[in-house]
Amino acid sequence: MFVPAIKGQGTEEQQKKWLPLAYKFQIIGCYAQTELGHGSNVQGLETTATFDPKTDGFVIHSPTLTSSKWWPGGLGKASTHAVVYARLITEGKDYGIHGFIVQLRSLEDHSPLPGVTLGDIGGKFGSGAYNSMDNGVLRFDHVRIPRDQMLMRLSQVTREGKYVNSDVPKQLLYGTMVYVRQSIVADASKALSRAVCIAVRYSAIRKQFGSQDGGPETQVLNYRTQQSRLFPLLASAYAFRFVGDWLNWLYTDVTQKLEAKDYSTLQEAHACTAGLKAVTTSATADAIEECRKLCGGHGYLNSSGLPELFAVYVPACTYEGDNVVLLLQVARILMKTVSQLTSGKQPVGTMAYMGKVQHLMQSKCAVKTAEDWLNPAFIQEAFEARALRMAVNCAQNIGQAANQEEGFYERSPDLLESAVAHIQLIIVTKFIEKVQQDIPGHGVKEQLQNLCNVYALYILHKHLGDFLATGCITPKQGALANEQLGKLYAQVRPNAVALVDAFNYTDHYLGSVLGRYDGNVYPALYEEAWKDPLNETVVPEGYHEYLHPLLKQQLKLSRL
Amino acid sequence: MFVPAIKGQGTEEQQKKWLPLAYKFQIIGCYAQTELGHGSNVQGLETTATFDPKTDGFVIHSPTLTSSKWWPGGLGKASTHAVVYARLITEGKDYGIHGFIVQLRSLEDHSPLPGVTLGDIGGKFGSGAYNSMDNGVLRFDHVRIPRDQMLMRLSQVTREGKYVNSDVPKQLLYGTMVYVRQSIVADASKALSRAVCIAVRYSAIRKQFGSQDGGPETQVLNYRTQQSRLFPLLASAYAFRFVGDWLNWLYTDVTQKLEAKDYSTLQEAHACTAGLKAVTTSATADAIEECRKLCGGHGYLNSSGLPELFAVYVPACTYEGDNVVLLLQVARILMKTVSQLTSGKQPVGTMAYMGKVQHLMQSKCAVKTAEDWLNPAFIQEAFEARALRMAVNCAQNIGQAANQEEGFYERSPDLLESAVAHIQLIIVTKFIEKVQQDIPGHGVKEQLQNLCNVYALYILHKHLGDFLATGCITPKQGALANEQLGKLYAQVRPNAVALVDAFNYTDHYLGSVLGRYDGNVYPALYEEAWKDPLNETVVPEGYHEYLHPLLKQQLKLSRL
Repeated sequence: MFVPAIKGQGTEEQQKKWLPLAYKFQIIGCYAQTELGHGSNVQGLETTATFDPKTDGFVIHSPTLTSSKWWPGGLGKASTHAVVYARLITEGKDYGIHGFIVQLRSLEDHSPLPGVTLGDIGGKFGSGAYNSMDNGVLRFDHVRIPRDQMLMRLSQVTREGKYVNSDVPKQLLYGTMVYVRQSIVADASKALSRAVCIAVRYSAIRKQFGSQDGGPETQVLNYRTQQSRLFPLLASAYAFRFVGDWLNWLYTDVTQKLEAKDYSTLQEAHACTAGLKAVTTSATADAIEECRKLCGGHGYLNSSGLPELFAVYVPACTYEGDNVVLLLQVARILMKTVSQLTSGKQPVGTMAYMGKVQHLMQSKCAVKTAEDWLNPAFIQEAFEARALRMAVNCAQNIGQAANQEEGFYERSPDLLESAVAHIQLIIVTKFIEKVQQDIPGHGVKEQLQNLCNVYALYILHKHLGDFLATGCITPKQGALANEQLGKLYAQVRPNAVALVDAFNYTDHYLGSVLGRYDGNVYPALYEEAWKDPLNETVVPEGYHEYLHPLLKQQLKLSRL
Repeated sequence: MFVPAIKGQGTEEQQKKWLPLAYKFQIIGCYAQTELGHGSNVQGLETTATFDPKTDGFVIHSPTLTSSKWWPGGLGKASTHAVVYARLITEGKDYGIHGFIVQLRSLEDHSPLPGVTLGDIGGKFGSGAYNSMDNGVLRFDHVRIPRDQMLMRLSQVTREGKYVNSDVPKQLLYGTMVYVRQSIVADASKALSRAVCIAVRYSAIRKQFGSQDGGPETQVLNYRTQQSRLFPLLASAYAFRFVGDWLNWLYTDVTQKLEAKDYSTLQEAHACTAGLKAVTTSATADAIEECRKLCGGHGYLNSSGLPELFAVYVPACTYEGDNVVLLLQVARILMKTVSQLTSGKQPVGTMAYMGKVQHLMQSKCAVKTAEDWLNPAFIQEAFEARALRMAVNCAQNIGQAANQEEGFYERSPDLLESAVAHIQLIIVTKFIEKVQQDIPGHGVKEQLQNLCNVYALYILHKHLGDFLATGCITPKQGALANEQLGKLYAQVRPNAVALVDAFNYTDHYLGSVLGRYDGNVYPALYEEAWKDPLNETVVPEGYHEYLHPLLKQQLKLSRL
């Protein structure tokens, strides 16, 4: 984040000077934004950068304990420099948060520079995971930097201390945010597919119950309960992959439009990436833990790979925008879009469906049989109607409040659900679009169509209350969807292992004895156990000191 | 579990001999049931205990790799003895799983006895948690024990090798199961209330956004989104506490009935404890992680106490009966009860409501205003109707299948949902019963009534699809419930901190810098960070070896 920050907010000269130093490791840079007291509310950061015209520089200072920089990765022990976000104060006026390049440690002996206090913030979730990252704490006691270390692409402070905005449009910053978040969506698919690969393969090996007269037991993958928990996650892994690919295209599209100073799709692109970040990371975190549980007791062993996968993954729900905060941003844009529907302004991109408001508010789902739910047009319309009606309901409820902000506050839990419905529609739409394309490989398209239907009908079943409450489908149609879902599980079953093999992960990358490609799970578990340091001795250390006296009741004779 | 096993299945002589040895630590015993290849399916265990009339003893043997005992706590390094579950074979016949007391290690030098292989199974989830427990692996190579080390309370093998059942009724074993599971429900409430206490207190300290003109920001506990995620968990902690207290009473009741050879409520008591174990542990595991997320980034630090609380807690979803396996047992009993409704057999205890089938299948919810949902009678009937209609739907669908087992298999995902609905009804019912009693303390009863309503309406909203699909309530009534829920959050808010203070946990027990009673969170976080071993030096170890050459680009000159 040090490099993107300088790329996004540094002048050409600053980029020319600092980027080579960072690329060649002549300095190690980190991104110091979050503080002990402020995360989501960046505008509330307390660190100050006060311009001193006498020295033509800034004084960087931590005025309170809560202004201590807290969490930046690599800050505690490794970084020599940081991009520090601080309130810019010049001529007695606070101009809000800006970025500054600050040297933290000596390049000779790595000792912190005068006025700089640095440390690691301590242990974190998991036994490995983020514990190998020196997330740090940083305090400044009136540290001075030259004026040209303020990142000055978007605004500058002159030699005299005047604050001046440049002619570079601020909207360009959104490009970086879209980029970072689309990569988080791609990572969600990667993490989820790893967990699903482990759980599917192990479920094909693990057998339990179902033996008749001492015959072989049933593979747990054959149980409908296992399938109903696992196959929707398999389908989600594919769904997130395809929506991630599309988001990558969106980033290119947004970048080109920004360069042409076309900001017409920017808000919609922001809502879409922020919402997809929130929905895919939350779903992935839950899914990894579900995969762990689906591996039974052995999933609790580190050798299964799943505990660490979970511990490493879950921060994604919090960093780069807390998921709830992001969904509320999506909801704000949805409410704005709804309010503009009557004025004739046509919504764009992933919100275009909202333009069909008159149709969608009164459309009736035409599904009559379970098989009808395989028709993507029925799925698409049900999801569009659900998302739109929830958004319109929220807008109407807000409209009844004394004022708009109070209404938004009171209805914020409903707004979260409305935002999720909108984002799930996007994921379903992009999956449907994908499987309508030509897809090479014998039978591949058919399998992906199955997964697309599993994903859509699983979401429909999980959020059945939304669909029924808004009258988008009838209880009978909901039951038919559930019936079709059961049939789809039966169709996915024979290809489930192939569908995770298709991720093409090596055993080394998976890092799981349960998820081995060769299925040789039990010998691997057994062998892995003996590598534990406790097994270096047969009689454990401490036996003679503690256990033996206890067993022989000699502790009673102890003088203590 | 070593002691309960001997108490439950040992003869009086065996109890007299072995219990004092275990109590006085002259031996350390563990409970060796689960194997590498078998957990939930106890009847599929592979370890054998073959009676040898020549020596008047049993030969304990692990015939396969998968028959290795795996997971027993304290087995790897500490235990000198184990109750080993193995297939009893005598006169060439396999009599299924029985318990045997087997000495594993020498009482002189703790070395494993001949034929016994022992080890630890390796690292587990979390950085502390179960890693301080030597969950072990154990293999037997034809280990001999005397005949009188078979636990012979329920069945015996005679000197000649005859297998004989005693006259002690096997149902007595259920008593132990009810006991263990009711303690797990009590533990769920304890773990959940710890997490909720931390999250509520920290949410009162943490401020973010909402500042007008530099004024104070808003406590995150004031946000409706935070309340809608956190207060249902607070209500759940109380709900599980009360249902746990009731379950403790049920255990006493069942025990007395068993002693009087009255088995009439046994099946219902089993369904009820198994189901409550499943529902409360799953909800608690999810809730702890939700509380962690509700603490934002700082919840990811070990010093928050939440990562370890989660890692220690989650095995409860798997041990003592995997939650899905248990819910399917509940569902089987529900299906049996439904099938007997027409025969006039009256369901008992927590299933008694099913006797009102004619009323509940066609009752219409009478709620007309949001406030109507505060009437416990309306809540009770809606939950009863939902649970019964889901069970009856499942039974009808199963009835349409070619055969009963096939139907049960195909509908098992629906059966899980049906079982959950039944168990949630029990929790809601016991909460309602509790708050209808006299409760001392000014205003306490009113607060508990609020929480009871929060719990019920939260479950209703979360499972709205169930209620709407079965026609128990209308979409309008669902919306009124949600509206009332919002009002309840506003009423809980001023008392939220008091409601977690009421758990009366010491800071030491909570083990969380975020959950401190005095609210002095930020200084505590800061202070805790400096205790990390990485902070013992200002310049980290390895700097001169690795970082300095990298920064100075001297690595290029390296000969490697």
